[in-house]
Amino acid sequence: MTSERQPATERRTYEPFTPPRRVLLGPGPSPVEERILQAMAAPLLGHLDPVFLRCMDEIQELLRFVFETTNRVTIPISATGSAGMEAALVNPIEPGDEVVVCIHGVFGERMLDIVGRCGGRPTAVRAEWGTPIDPEQIRAALASCSKPKAVAIVHAETSTGVLQDLKGLSEMAHDHGALLIVDAVTSLGGHPVGVDRNGIDVCYSGTQKCLGAPPGLAPVTFSERALEVIRNRQTKVQSWYLDISMVEKYWGGERTYHHTAPISMNYALREALQIVYEEGLEARWARHQRNHRALVAGVEAMGLAMNVAPPDRLWSLNAVRVPDGVDDGRVRARLLSDDQIEIGGGLGPLKGKIWRIGLMGSGSARQNVRLVLDALQRALQAEGFDCASGVEAAERVYESGAAS
Amino acid sequence: MTSERQPATERRTYEPFTPPRRVLLGPGPSPVEERILQAMAAPLLGHLDPVFLRCMDEIQELLRFVFETTNRVTIPISATGSAGMEAALVNPIEPGDEVVVCIHGVFGERMLDIVGRCGGRPTAVRAEWGTPIDPEQIRAALASCSKPKAVAIVHAETSTGVLQDLKGLSEMAHDHGALLIVDAVTSLGGHPVGVDRNGIDVCYSGTQKCLGAPPGLAPVTFSERALEVIRNRQTKVQSWYLDISMVEKYWGGERTYHHTAPISMNYALREALQIVYEEGLEARWARHQRNHRALVAGVEAMGLAMNVAPPDRLWSLNAVRVPDGVDDGRVRARLLSDDQIEIGGGLGPLKGKIWRIGLMGSGSARQNVRLVLDALQRALQAEGFDCASGVEAAERVYESGAAS
Repeated sequence: MTSERQPATERRTYEPFTPPRRVLLGPGPSPVEERILQAMAAPLLGHLDPVFLRCMDEIQELLRFVFETTNRVTIPISATGSAGMEAALVNPIEPGDEVVVCIHGVFGERMLDIVGRCGGRPTAVRAEWGTPIDPEQIRAALASCSKPKAVAIVHAETSTGVLQDLKGLSEMAHDHGALLIVDAVTSLGGHPVGVDRNGIDVCYSGTQKCLGAPPGLAPVTFSERALEVIRNRQTKVQSWYLDISMVEKYWGGERTYHHTAPISMNYALREALQIVYEEGLEARWARHQRNHRALVAGVEAMGLAMNVAPPDRLWSLNAVRVPDGVDDGRVRARLLSDDQIEIGGGLGPLKGKIWRIGLMGSGSARQNVRLVLDALQRALQAEGFDCASGVEAAERVYESGAAS
Repeated sequence: MTSERQPATERRTYEPFTPPRRVLLGPGPSPVEERILQAMAAPLLGHLDPVFLRCMDEIQELLRFVFETTNRVTIPISATGSAGMEAALVNPIEPGDEVVVCIHGVFGERMLDIVGRCGGRPTAVRAEWGTPIDPEQIRAALASCSKPKAVAIVHAETSTGVLQDLKGLSEMAHDHGALLIVDAVTSLGGHPVGVDRNGIDVCYSGTQKCLGAPPGLAPVTFSERALEVIRNRQTKVQSWYLDISMVEKYWGGERTYHHTAPISMNYALREALQIVYEEGLEARWARHQRNHRALVAGVEAMGLAMNVAPPDRLWSLNAVRVPDGVDDGRVRARLLSDDQIEIGGGLGPLKGKIWRIGLMGSGSARQNVRLVLDALQRALQAEGFDCASGVEAAERVYESGAAS
């Protein structure tokens, strides 16, 4: 405890910090390609340097590409994905505003918390953790409001591994004059998000999931409808740092100084987006789907069960039930120590009950599916849980895919 | 305009991004040493990986060292320095709270804006841009309040180059039951800040100034007195992302998940702090002072004038008056294009009237003083402003220092 409270005044020696090379198959950060790490190590530029301004323009173009949008205001917030959520909510919502908040995991709960901090009046729509939200309940919640400002929903619940179908939600929201706000932290770059096609008004993500960059920035996009709502606010946005009307002036044509952009993180994001662009969205989605299917086949061949019903499964984050009698934490610790593999545990009501295996960005790879299935089998056997190998079943998925 | 609005759907080609190597002598970011860039390019760890948790512990120890504090809650906020300001204000201040806000530049104005967004009732104490705040005015402002919650003041005004003396301010604030909140963005690591010695309750900084890391994190520290005020809040902190009572649980012994820490930025900060630690605070301050004195001698030998009176000058940020008839922007553009040197222009009422020459972190170096004096002379001559060389006068400062 003393060392935690004291400044480092005595001349202790700090050893060079050399992190081990992990295989990051948890809920994020996902593995970062060497090309991106090297981009981040490039010499710094000033945040108003003409060369950096060009870098910012390319980031905006490439973010529009991955979000599938023509929204003018499509930028990275200078903080992590959670700040993206906060930016998405504090900009449109004013005290007294009614907001339908859909909750089926940690991130829906967090939205509810933030709506409360904005002085919003939330109507919660809930589903059991591990299942998606029933759109009919959203319809009913909207009908129960007098003048709803927004519907907020998580597309990819990182805490449960559930993919939420977005179809029809924007019509529902727009029919009531409400905005559709979507959390795509764990889907953008791994699943189709289709901001324009799905009529999403505000969408945010993180860099450290399917985009494959380090954590530190939160891509966001605001539709013209959302910007109009923000322009008509009666009060100032409660966060100066996240006030999109100020942030967009730095990213837009005016280049007005707001805050010093995190230069190196933007280098990393630009490089990561270029990799997404080179691969192509459809190919990238297909890769995420294919590796997910192989993992599921392997997991089930091992005698384990997925926690989410087949149509609702994320490709990027796989929730596997911890078998009875197996110690969740000990298995994860063994994977980390013996195989350098990180997977995630469950949160909230799913704590100790599921593992969360992320296959995101460059981490979504045949080699990693093999690695984690193999390591999991050995770890389970060490726990006295006798199980078959899942590798062959996974390989069959790849071979059938290659043949089809 | 079209390219700005459109996603990158047509198959355009993105060239590899290779930023030029600038000499960053503006208001920040400052130059980042290769050792730090390489630290940032290390492989990612999960944000709950035991090895990363150790890295976090070292960062906290080293931050206590540079802040000169034993404050338990001494951590980097996962966003840039401006978010550090927001965190410093939104955590203690509740709607209706009286706050004395000292304003002598851009960053005091920003504090005022944020206090307003918190629902605080500010009493502004102003000084002309380029001069420090008169402590007697702070005393009078405190006396005019019924129950002031805080005094907020900028130690190092990046927009003007003014150093604010902090002596006596904490007694003044504490006598009224108010907290002392200090912006040390451009002083921490370059000037003594002395959080404990100066009785500062909340202090924040940025990584991209005298600490010499890239922008992206905001070191903050909260005294026990400040934490007590925060614990006694009647309302939730308006920002979920910056709520220190939640953030500290991730950085403290509990390691409760809050948001995904920006791993690579923390690697960079750790390395930068290790460099500060190896150099020693006193040696680092002396270096910043020495290079500042040499620059001033050079600037004055050239026939240019400093904009701030000698006792109030920052060592890290030097405000030099633009001579009559000289085009500010053209000179800066020439330094950038001909010499790869970035310096800053003035802001607000000082726009076009001063240059801001930063000598921060590793940028505070004899070689850079020579470079910028030489380049400035050539740029001014190209503008038709005939001036002598400043290099010799600067060198004399180093030689007298070496002799003394």
